[in-house]
Amino acid sequence: MAARWRRVLFGKPLATRHSDHQRLPVYIGLPVFASDAISSVAYATEEVLLALTLGTGVAASVALQQVFPISAAIAVLLAIVVFSYRQTIFAYPNGGGSYIVAKDNLGATAGLTAGAALLIDYVLTVAVSIAAGVAAIVSAFPVLEPHRVGLCLGFILLLTLANLRGLKESGSVFMVPTYAFLIAIYALIAVGFYKYFSGSLGHLAPTADAHPVEAGAGGLTLFLLLRAFSSGCVAMTGTEAVSNGVPAFRAPERQNASTTLVLMAAILGSLFLGISFLAWQYGASPDHEHSETVISILASGIVGRNWLYYFLQVSTFLLLVVAANTAYADFPRLTMLLAQDRYLPRQLTHIGDRLVFSNGIVALALLAAGLVVAFGGITHHLIPLYSVGVFLSFTLSQAGMVRRWFRLQGNGWQRNALINGFGAIATGLVLLVVAYTKFTAGDPISLYPVTTPLGYWLIVTAVGFVLISMGHRRWGWWFLAMSAVGLLLWGLMVRSPLLGSAPVRMGAWVVIVIIPMLIWMFSRIHAHYAEVAEHLTMTRHSRIPGFKHTVLIPVSGVNRGIMPALAYARSIGGDVRAVYVEIDPVRTAELIDRWQRYEPDIPLVVLDSPYRSLTDPFLEYVDQVERERDDDVITVVIPEFVTEKWWTRALHGQSGLQLQLALMFKRGVVVTSIRYYLTRDLGEMPDHILTSKLPASEVGPS
Amino acid sequence: MAARWRRVLFGKPLATRHSDHQRLPVYIGLPVFASDAISSVAYATEEVLLALTLGTGVAASVALQQVFPISAAIAVLLAIVVFSYRQTIFAYPNGGGSYIVAKDNLGATAGLTAGAALLIDYVLTVAVSIAAGVAAIVSAFPVLEPHRVGLCLGFILLLTLANLRGLKESGSVFMVPTYAFLIAIYALIAVGFYKYFSGSLGHLAPTADAHPVEAGAGGLTLFLLLRAFSSGCVAMTGTEAVSNGVPAFRAPERQNASTTLVLMAAILGSLFLGISFLAWQYGASPDHEHSETVISILASGIVGRNWLYYFLQVSTFLLLVVAANTAYADFPRLTMLLAQDRYLPRQLTHIGDRLVFSNGIVALALLAAGLVVAFGGITHHLIPLYSVGVFLSFTLSQAGMVRRWFRLQGNGWQRNALINGFGAIATGLVLLVVAYTKFTAGDPISLYPVTTPLGYWLIVTAVGFVLISMGHRRWGWWFLAMSAVGLLLWGLMVRSPLLGSAPVRMGAWVVIVIIPMLIWMFSRIHAHYAEVAEHLTMTRHSRIPGFKHTVLIPVSGVNRGIMPALAYARSIGGDVRAVYVEIDPVRTAELIDRWQRYEPDIPLVVLDSPYRSLTDPFLEYVDQVERERDDDVITVVIPEFVTEKWWTRALHGQSGLQLQLALMFKRGVVVTSIRYYLTRDLGEMPDHILTSKLPASEVGPS
Repeated sequence: MAARWRRVLFGKPLATRHSDHQRLPVYIGLPVFASDAISSVAYATEEVLLALTLGTGVAASVALQQVFPISAAIAVLLAIVVFSYRQTIFAYPNGGGSYIVAKDNLGATAGLTAGAALLIDYVLTVAVSIAAGVAAIVSAFPVLEPHRVGLCLGFILLLTLANLRGLKESGSVFMVPTYAFLIAIYALIAVGFYKYFSGSLGHLAPTADAHPVEAGAGGLTLFLLLRAFSSGCVAMTGTEAVSNGVPAFRAPERQNASTTLVLMAAILGSLFLGISFLAWQYGASPDHEHSETVISILASGIVGRNWLYYFLQVSTFLLLVVAANTAYADFPRLTMLLAQDRYLPRQLTHIGDRLVFSNGIVALALLAAGLVVAFGGITHHLIPLYSVGVFLSFTLSQAGMVRRWFRLQGNGWQRNALINGFGAIATGLVLLVVAYTKFTAGDPISLYPVTTPLGYWLIVTAVGFVLISMGHRRWGWWFLAMSAVGLLLWGLMVRSPLLGSAPVRMGAWVVIVIIPMLIWMFSRIHAHYAEVAEHLTMTRHSRIPGFKHTVLIPVSGVNRGIMPALAYARSIGGDVRAVYVEIDPVRTAELIDRWQRYEPDIPLVVLDSPYRSLTDPFLEYVDQVERERDDDVITVVIPEFVTEKWWTRALHGQSGLQLQLALMFKRGVVVTSIRYYLTRDLGEMPDHILTSKLPASEVGPS
Repeated sequence: MAARWRRVLFGKPLATRHSDHQRLPVYIGLPVFASDAISSVAYATEEVLLALTLGTGVAASVALQQVFPISAAIAVLLAIVVFSYRQTIFAYPNGGGSYIVAKDNLGATAGLTAGAALLIDYVLTVAVSIAAGVAAIVSAFPVLEPHRVGLCLGFILLLTLANLRGLKESGSVFMVPTYAFLIAIYALIAVGFYKYFSGSLGHLAPTADAHPVEAGAGGLTLFLLLRAFSSGCVAMTGTEAVSNGVPAFRAPERQNASTTLVLMAAILGSLFLGISFLAWQYGASPDHEHSETVISILASGIVGRNWLYYFLQVSTFLLLVVAANTAYADFPRLTMLLAQDRYLPRQLTHIGDRLVFSNGIVALALLAAGLVVAFGGITHHLIPLYSVGVFLSFTLSQAGMVRRWFRLQGNGWQRNALINGFGAIATGLVLLVVAYTKFTAGDPISLYPVTTPLGYWLIVTAVGFVLISMGHRRWGWWFLAMSAVGLLLWGLMVRSPLLGSAPVRMGAWVVIVIIPMLIWMFSRIHAHYAEVAEHLTMTRHSRIPGFKHTVLIPVSGVNRGIMPALAYARSIGGDVRAVYVEIDPVRTAELIDRWQRYEPDIPLVVLDSPYRSLTDPFLEYVDQVERERDDDVITVVIPEFVTEKWWTRALHGQSGLQLQLALMFKRGVVVTSIRYYLTRDLGEMPDHILTSKLPASEVGPS
């Protein structure tokens, strides 16, 4: 039944030999690898404006004048980075992701740092792209506003299911949204410029209440400008995708990849500058309630809410979904590389029956969904976490290239090293700026219920119980005492907002904390696998020649259900004993009598159970046998009977299951469960000793 | 660790020999067995008034004049029932619950009907008592109003934990709240009557907005009066408790129990009449927002919000908690009786290590908590479900007694039969009245999310998937098509309240539907146990003399981890084969070579896996072996290795676990997992072949 579900949701399994790749020309490679980068124009301008105005006291009109220069600076940075990455394409024709370039040239730690940064990055790509896509839809259909988080989760779920089925990386899935968006947005910009030059663009009057200017309205500080610049840098996310994908291009691969990269930069730069210019001239400052995007304000102002507007919004949404989808390809590929190098659980290297890395896909979806829920599906709240990882991996990748040129010293290496060195320094500087200005730059976020008094109280109480159960009694009771005091305080001040919540300022610090934690986790996993490999290495003495058994069979009485287990135990051989745990002494004498009649060869051990537990006396007896018979393995053969229907299974077998669970944590004991099937259907079952085929018509002697 | 948790929460296990009962005198028996019945005065008067006014258009002043006559009628009914139950006490000195009396005298079906009614009854006792107790607290401390449901759940949790620990049935736990409440409530009534006779009671003027009288304000119909009478009958819930508990009394048991029953009736009747009289005279009509109880209105009017008021409210709350607790004793006892008679899963007969029926307690708590959540913790919403079960079990119990007198024809049987017959007819008539007037009498309830459009859509979609996965493809797709149409409709009418919900009118019909369903479930379970008993009966041919094995060991390579499994398989004997599933053909040749070197005696079978699954080819091979070797049992010995820390376990053993799960559903295959422990700590482990004690310093030939 589970298998049928899988087929319905994910389709038939695909054979390994179908895994060949289709090679892509530039016109398909562009949508496949550049959609992520290009899609960031949907929110980059807005982020610059929000960084300048939100909570700063800077007037929208002042901010609007800064948006174009800041965008121009980012475009220059983009050009530097793209030039730098062109060199990576030619140096790593098999794909030069930041993890590989940094690991190859700067060593394992740098590689893991880049890897950790990229993993965070991919999760944020999904969360931010989906949130921005939903924002485009909500701008067009404001009635959907209350369902923002639900829509985000729904689209993440759809993307995940599609990727578990195995989306082909090529073709119309990527091309249609990308080219539709390009047509729509260039059309918008063209109309905008026409109106600007013909003097009919107009200017949106800022409404006083929508953009409140505080009393002590400050001017623009250098910090604010740098912070706005950092926010705008999200436009550059996804730039490295082309250099990852070189082998996917049609021959000549490097040349085609390089062309795609330059094309992408030209499109991204022109769109970003165009939108920023129009936003400045038209006065399209963002809505602080996050209910309408700058693109939407601009489009409805320039062309009105006609079909072009809706076409633009829908294609923006689709492009952002496609952008999120690139992370669904990149994240599992990176976790597979890390798992191959034994830095992550090796399950992540398993290729599922649809030829995709299912575990990585599910992990990515869960993390992104968690972020979306925690941040209420608001793009702007997610942005402060985004750029640090991106620029960290840029810097490490470029620095790795510089090191490589110095090491190889090939033809023209000085020029190449200079280009990459310039790239590394530029992105490194931006990294510092981003980390500094975005350190706690996020808006206050309410992470309900973690930051409520009730949340704190639950955490303190839970920590207390966990400590006590782990044996740290003194600390545990101390925590429980604190929790009691907390409860008392709340009881005395009944009016305090038990369920209100305190805000937390997210920002780059979160990423700066998580990256070392990830690296530490990678290295722990690596050390563990190394140790296990050492344990498992074969030696001359590894082979075990054979051993004697002690076999114990827990029995509840004399009935047909235990017969197969007794027969199995006898067939294993060794010292076979049946064990009966006595709860009601009245039945014991009759049982021993019946036992003598039916199974005289197997000794029956009767155990006392003062606390009516079936499991504890049995476990004690196992310990006792283990002490008595030192060299043997103890096999516990548990008789179970299995009924035909699922609901009747719940009516039996609880004690057998309990015993199995208890023995699972006991070292050196082998557990074998002998299932005896009760069935009414004569035709279905083979003639088998593990099956009771018909109700007994003969009554036994009792 | 789990065991430590259990100890902290539930205390040490108690030995069977500590299970003796303490015998109770009348002054303790009264609080223990009568608290449930007495506690219903906390809400009975209020329910009469609400039934008359809520949504009927009857003015509060009109309703108030009816409350005393209705209460008097109920008091008469109470006297009849108590007289009738006195006879049960003398007839069933070992406890005459309705289930036993009905089963003994009217047959199994009547017994099961009474049993089903009582089970529903006990669940409602918990839900209603806790909700009413919280209402008393909320009346005194209105700031708690928004936490009504949370408080109910919290107290249910506390009661459950206390009962899992095993509350002693006797002593101060019951006495203090009961006698405190009696003192407080009689003091209130005394002050009230003093003020009434001295003419200083006053009369509360009904505020127009609190009790809106509709335009077409109807008069009192007979139906309304009967409905109010039905509502007031909740006062009689719990009356049968004393007759259940006869053996708990000190000798002479029957006489003491009878005295307790009459005392209880006198107290209950006098309190109910006293409160109803004062509510009528003072004009204490209930608050339609359910934010203050009638008792609270009365007490603050008569004595003011002083210490007596708070004492009354708190003791009312405590009494109601104690009343809920009686269901915690009765419900598990009844499920135990039903399980002993094989009408419920036999796990319900297990006595936990604290001498309580833990499974029954947990089941009761979950059901009551569900009701509280569904009905928003409002007493009034729960009442329509309550009385049907109570009067059904009254009627069956009394009818059973009549049958018994006719059968036994002992001394003065005609007189006894007349008394019980009169009781049966009276309660039977009331049962009809209750079922008729309360059929859909509940206020409209919003059962979010079941009754939302989204809820319907989810149910339709889920049914579709379930049908397809069960093989009913055509119906499944039909449901999925309906779900798609639903989604489309919602997409077109975006403004429809997707998350709004339609109200459902609860009422006696719910109970009338559930009782036959429960009886059907009882009989299915009974039939199943009978069939299994037949299967398991020993016959002369049941003993299985012994059989040959085929042993399969799935291996992933040649390493120390599989050596114990191979040795174990060899020691079992029979036809032993190792099985390797080939995913990457490159490694196979080397593996076969190494296999020849280390384990030449065991043949190695190599299986192809086109879809990269480890499990499927293995399962196919098992089928193939089963066809080849007809009479054997196939044992699959799975090598697993277990690492020291919990987090490292997640890094291994996934494929072994998957195989185990897949084989769990395969008939006639025995699965044995050989765990090989990797440990760094030399001292901790015995010298055991299932343990790798140190990293290998010697490197094997490879």
